Amino acid sequence: MSAERPLRSAPRPSLRRMPMYLRCLRALQKTSVEWVSCTYLAEVLQMDPTLVRKDLALTGVVGKPKVGFQLSGLIAAMEHFIGWDNLEDAFLVGVGNLGSALLGYEGFGQHGLNIVAGFDVDAAKVGSEIQGRQILHVDKLPGLAQRMHIGIGIITVGVRAAQGVADLMVSGGIRAIWNFAPMRLEVPAGMIVENEDLAGTLAVLSRRLAGLSVDLPVVEPKAE
Amino acid sequence: MSAERPLRSAPRPSLRRMPMYLRCLRALQKTSVEWVSCTYLAEVLQMDPTLVRKDLALTGVVGKPKVGFQLSGLIAAMEHFIGWDNLEDAFLVGVGNLGSALLGYEGFGQHGLNIVAGFDVDAAKVGSEIQGRQILHVDKLPGLAQRMHIGIGIITVGVRAAQGVADLMVSGGIRAIWNFAPMRLEVPAGMIVENEDLAGTLAVLSRRLAGLSVDLPVVEPKAE
Repeated sequence: MSAERPLRSAPRPSLRRMPMYLRCLRALQKTSVEWVSCTYLAEVLQMDPTLVRKDLALTGVVGKPKVGFQLSGLIAAMEHFIGWDNLEDAFLVGVGNLGSALLGYEGFGQHGLNIVAGFDVDAAKVGSEIQGRQILHVDKLPGLAQRMHIGIGIITVGVRAAQGVADLMVSGGIRAIWNFAPMRLEVPAGMIVENEDLAGTLAVLSRRLAGLSVDLPVVEPKAE
Repeated sequence: MSAERPLRSAPRPSLRRMPMYLRCLRALQKTSVEWVSCTYLAEVLQMDPTLVRKDLALTGVVGKPKVGFQLSGLIAAMEHFIGWDNLEDAFLVGVGNLGSALLGYEGFGQHGLNIVAGFDVDAAKVGSEIQGRQILHVDKLPGLAQRMHIGIGIITVGVRAAQGVADLMVSGGIRAIWNFAPMRLEVPAGMIVENEDLAGTLAVLSRRLAGLSVDLPVVEPKAE
């Protein structure tokens, strides 16, 4: 059976791959399967088995030789490793197309995220609902965030409004920002910011399409 | 003045940061500024100056000591480095919220991408327009892609439909896929695929929020 060892540090590329493993494992869980091997995961995901083995080892779960990992134990360890044991509440600001897409996405619950409400300044949007989530005026954010102990802020406004929104989130006691505006935010030390820059992926795609080489990280032979 | 050296290979993290530099440089270009230093860029972007210097050096442009880089030369070199000298035509499949957000985004022209049309199977969407771009039935994709020499396919459908869409793109001669469906696509060798997995970023955010450590890549002291 699996025994948990102390949690170690997480290399960012490995951590980013965990949701992909989790999706695969959860799909398996719906069948009658109880054990899973690295080789199986590698095959389904078209990845290098050594890389999968290294990634799974990070969770601290120990497999059984020639059998693999006990499925539910591996899932629990992985969720714990990512920090998805509990759902974290989030506010989203900027209910345009992208914001609506995120508000409407049903899968975030599987990814530790519960978007509680959306915020905007547009009078036509304030007062409406998307997927049962209220759209409120952004002025209400700091007070509500404090009262509801919101942990995550999602920014889907444009570049010009983004810093002001970040400031509101900081004043509301939000500790982590998922930023879709293509710019760097200024935030106090200790604040967590992850930038989602689609143009970055586009740059990789464009350079590869132009026939120019892109170096993959050394540890990831087949991962990307 | 800047002289171009032979293009070298591009580490993926550096390449992903290039659009951010470009945005900053283009904004500067609208002022009367003609020269720019790594120190300035580092300050504006809140990054480590050494890292900025290394990234810019990849483009092959040589700066002038104590003055920096000639702005228009640096922009041109960077665009060339990314492969954004010319706009690449793209088809997008899956006109839901996310697909509409991407179709409606005006900034892609600045990022080498020209989304020519959207595709869907939903009769309510087929025949409509988003930002002047026609929404066509997905059956028409292979023929049109071949006739128009479309280079890039963008997949914004769900997991179940994604592989079928990828197959259509391959049969239409599309060479690069930007995949937003959270799964690995099976494609022929030589096909370029970049996966945009939002859950990956969310995993990093969640683990940091849970107070657990995440290793940053060694070369990027302040970048993320």
